Amino acid sequence: MAHLLELTQQGDPGTIVDESQLDKIQLQNPQQLYELWERQQWQAHGIDLSRDPADWQALSDDEREYILWGLSSFFIGEERVTTQFSGLVMAYEDQSEEAYLATQQVDEARHTQFFGRYYDQVFSIGGGIDAQLERVREHVNDAFVRLFDEVLVAENKRLIADPSDRGAKIDFITTYMMVIEGTLALTGQYTITTFLERRGILPGFIEGFQNISRDEHRHVAYGTWYLQQAVRRDRSVGERVQAKLAELLPIAAEVLVPPGCSLEDEWEMFGFTRSEVHGYAFQALSRRMKAIGLGIPQLV
Amino acid sequence: MAHLLELTQQGDPGTIVDESQLDKIQLQNPQQLYELWERQQWQAHGIDLSRDPADWQALSDDEREYILWGLSSFFIGEERVTTQFSGLVMAYEDQSEEAYLATQQVDEARHTQFFGRYYDQVFSIGGGIDAQLERVREHVNDAFVRLFDEVLVAENKRLIADPSDRGAKIDFITTYMMVIEGTLALTGQYTITTFLERRGILPGFIEGFQNISRDEHRHVAYGTWYLQQAVRRDRSVGERVQAKLAELLPIAAEVLVPPGCSLEDEWEMFGFTRSEVHGYAFQALSRRMKAIGLGIPQLV
Ligand SMILES: [Fe+2]
Ligand SMILES: [Fe+2]
Ligand SMILES: [Fe+2]
Ligand SMILES: [Fe+2]
Repeated sequence: MAHLLELTQQGDPGTIVDESQLDKIQLQNPQQLYELWERQQWQAHGIDLSRDPADWQALSDDEREYILWGLSSFFIGEERVTTQFSGLVMAYEDQSEEAYLATQQVDEARHTQFFGRYYDQVFSIGGGIDAQLERVREHVNDAFVRLFDEVLVAENKRLIADPSDRGAKIDFITTYMMVIEGTLALTGQYTITTFLERRGILPGFIEGFQNISRDEHRHVAYGTWYLQQAVRRDRSVGERVQAKLAELLPIAAEVLVPPGCSLEDEWEMFGFTRSEVHGYAFQALSRRMKAIGLGIPQLV
Repeated sequence: MAHLLELTQQGDPGTIVDESQLDKIQLQNPQQLYELWERQQWQAHGIDLSRDPADWQALSDDEREYILWGLSSFFIGEERVTTQFSGLVMAYEDQSEEAYLATQQVDEARHTQFFGRYYDQVFSIGGGIDAQLERVREHVNDAFVRLFDEVLVAENKRLIADPSDRGAKIDFITTYMMVIEGTLALTGQYTITTFLERRGILPGFIEGFQNISRDEHRHVAYGTWYLQQAVRRDRSVGERVQAKLAELLPIAAEVLVPPGCSLEDEWEMFGFTRSEVHGYAFQALSRRMKAIGLGIPQLV
């Protein structure tokens, strides 16, 4: 049986190159993902940002506004996924899973710290993370608010109220790892990183964002593992996952729409067309669903 | 004003050498402690344990039993402080404190992982951390159960029920950082590390345990900072802290008593007399209380 880590990034089957391996691969378990985390430490406060301010100043006002829009959803999103995570940490089923989940929460805190430092040192938006978050809130749309401030918050509260509620845990993991991280975050990270690399600007940001993406693939790998186990124990879990995806994927699609556009428009995002963006997101999701043992969901 | 980190280990005033500096020092805030954590990563699964099994086999049965007793309280204690921590993470008051608290929870998980790996590879007690914990439970006494399974668990539950309850937060921090980490853990770590260094055995364990102690000093530094701020805002907090110490220090003193001895006996622990052990614990506590702005508590 092929070892997943050799075929994918971080054990995330969304990144597998040879799809014929999808139903044979052995997913990484939480103990392996914990140990992988130990080997992949990085410092949000240690990345060299010395070249970025000059690059930033050389951009036009429109370009700066556009990049700020793209990054601000990430900054706020990282805060949301950090602070709305304790319910899942409390829902651990053994000590290896507990250790893994603690690594994920601190990863999200580190991501938030990276954005806070970057906004301060490169964008000259300072005053501490709480003040920064308040200021950049203007950049997020209604779908973002629905997903991050309503759905995610409510699902975390349900787990806190009863960490042994396996249905609540499956809903939370589907929302968090499959939709927010797997579909939204990794797609946005791919488009923005590619855009900045092509332009050859903001190398400090690229370095931090690549570290963040590496962490996110590890997080999605955990969620895929959890859902695979849950579906194998009980086939009805699959319907629950599909229902949650059907509820949230239309909202997620709206989150990606640039300001001034609507979902049906032929918009572009950081040099990618709407169909390229959706294609990237949904191919990765389909691979993960196949690894979990579920059919490809009905997509928007 | 002297910078605390230069005068102490990890910003923990319990380790200050020149006590005349105690009321002048500036404590590290959570943002500084978060950034310190980023620079102090270590791998529980990366420490070289190759010399330890032969050292362990060369010990007598009695010596092995004695060391297993000493270490098992730590192993179980690390699990307890990892899994009973989400209430405090949820009680963050700003994003810097949240980030710091996430680092502490993953530190505790890493400490548990280190013990799990060590028991497996050196003591040949395996089967995964959950099975290991069940097996080593025989080594803990009634006072341990009272402190870790009853008091700590109840205080975490109170915070989970209402993370905005500042009284519950002060009680939790006094119990966790002042009593469990500051008084018990750091004292046990000092005696056991000194004992093993004098004997020249178990170098892999010493390396891991020193990393754990470094983390614990950072954790106690956070608790000292929090209580100092809270007392400065409201003097009545001091009485609350003192009352909690008066409740728990007698229990903590019982936790340290070796099997077969009672608190009043002239017992020894890893080559230190009872009065040396208590003297070490209470000197550090007194320094921290002074930094917080409180008098030295009435001690058992
Ligand atoms: Fe993240
Ligand atoms: Fe993540
Ligand atoms: Fe610890
Ligand atoms: Fe600790």
